[in-house]
Amino acid sequence: METISEVRAFGGTQGVYTHASEVCGCDMTFAVYMPPQAKDGPVPVLWYLSGLTCTHENAMTKGGLQEHAAECGLAIVYPDTSPRGDDVANDEAYDLGQGAGFYVNATEGPWAPHFQMESYVTDELRALVLSEFAVLDQHGVTGHSMGGHGALTLALKYPDLFQSVSALSPIANPSASDWGRKQLGAYLGGDETSWQAHDASCLLKKKGWKSDILVDQGASDQFLELLKPESLAGALAETRTPSTFRMQTGYDHSYFFVSTFGRDHVLWHAERLIGGW
Amino acid sequence: METISEVRAFGGTQGVYTHASEVCGCDMTFAVYMPPQAKDGPVPVLWYLSGLTCTHENAMTKGGLQEHAAECGLAIVYPDTSPRGDDVANDEAYDLGQGAGFYVNATEGPWAPHFQMESYVTDELRALVLSEFAVLDQHGVTGHSMGGHGALTLALKYPDLFQSVSALSPIANPSASDWGRKQLGAYLGGDETSWQAHDASCLLKKKGWKSDILVDQGASDQFLELLKPESLAGALAETRTPSTFRMQTGYDHSYFFVSTFGRDHVLWHAERLIGGW
Repeated sequence: METISEVRAFGGTQGVYTHASEVCGCDMTFAVYMPPQAKDGPVPVLWYLSGLTCTHENAMTKGGLQEHAAECGLAIVYPDTSPRGDDVANDEAYDLGQGAGFYVNATEGPWAPHFQMESYVTDELRALVLSEFAVLDQHGVTGHSMGGHGALTLALKYPDLFQSVSALSPIANPSASDWGRKQLGAYLGGDETSWQAHDASCLLKKKGWKSDILVDQGASDQFLELLKPESLAGALAETRTPSTFRMQTGYDHSYFFVSTFGRDHVLWHAERLIGGW
Repeated sequence: METISEVRAFGGTQGVYTHASEVCGCDMTFAVYMPPQAKDGPVPVLWYLSGLTCTHENAMTKGGLQEHAAECGLAIVYPDTSPRGDDVANDEAYDLGQGAGFYVNATEGPWAPHFQMESYVTDELRALVLSEFAVLDQHGVTGHSMGGHGALTLALKYPDLFQSVSALSPIANPSASDWGRKQLGAYLGGDETSWQAHDASCLLKKKGWKSDILVDQGASDQFLELLKPESLAGALAETRTPSTFRMQTGYDHSYFFVSTFGRDHVLWHAERLIGGW
């Protein structure tokens, strides 16, 4: 692991790092915010998964979560959204290939050699963060849009790895959306039954969740037809999952939505990972 | 004035607008955050002046001030840092011409026809904001780097226009710095005495300030030699100006510095413009 930059932020340290990923077969860049409390001992980790077109940087610079993580004593990890590089397959569309990993392990060409974001986040980067930073093996996961999809699906699929999960305007039902069908088909092949293990609404109905879930969605989101919040809201209700699903009047899909409700999400995870918030 | 975008943020509205500026002789873009309190009546205005290379957008997306403005009930105006356009003079250097207006009225060619940022901020844009938004004629001004220079110099030069002033890592003594001598020479000509009306350290010693001043500076700022905080700290002490000058250990010049201390600045202005904070 190599340090690209480290600067002081809210009494802690905002760092950007790179490492050679075996799983993705390329160098991967990620960001970690370490709160001031980490000086006194290891802290729990909140994973923030980003959306289409994003790198590790967008939420790091525009999400404003560090202030709240410093208040609570949580580390935040911001992974990239896909493998990167000239040797890595790509597509001209913004929503397939680089910047659009969808947090799955591709089985199909030309994606399979590099697009292994599910294993990258849940295994390789997790192990790296646990070994290189003063963090506890206690994890929450959240994310925005495609990253909200990632947060929900990875938590539901790997409940032993995550103690808490929330999402901001997630792609909630990708197997029924143009944000999902194209990508899951490309990465996983045409057998749609394999897609359901990567669809939060399907997973919830199939497996349930061990604890509670917080979801925020902007009511003026320009991508409501693609996000399909009604599928997730329905699944949460149908499965009687302890949950808070908030339809936020007037908010769109931007980082202003993320930063507005970011504090609620950070404190919600802190309550579940640390208690007392 | 034309609306480019308006989105909900922290219960208020983050807008971006454009208008034909007579003073600058070009279209100018600016951002305004209106807090939720503006629904109940006009609110005071905090002007945030940005630094070299920035547009209206950088602090709007990375500064995180909206959260605090929504807490206090302040509007925030984010002007651009210079005139823009193919017809507007420019320079290959990042620190002269477009993106580097230095908040002065240029008297020299080729800059004079457009580079009138002093009048633009204190007169034209001020009048536009007062007429188009639900704001009171009560103003604070802050800014970062070149914008900290702008905040201090415009407040000191026009004390009747601003009730409060603060700065984040300002260019504090431009007439003695490579961030200043080149630009003031280009925009105002070679007579260095004319530069002193645009140098916070000189202005403070010459005119003083009617009230108190808050300044934050990162101790690990990579531009300390150019910013010359010691000149301003010395001038504040020498003139016995009621002031708080904080040298913040470990912080650099980035927006993480701005967002970390942004809350203190917004609340500091709110205390002086509204009271009770």
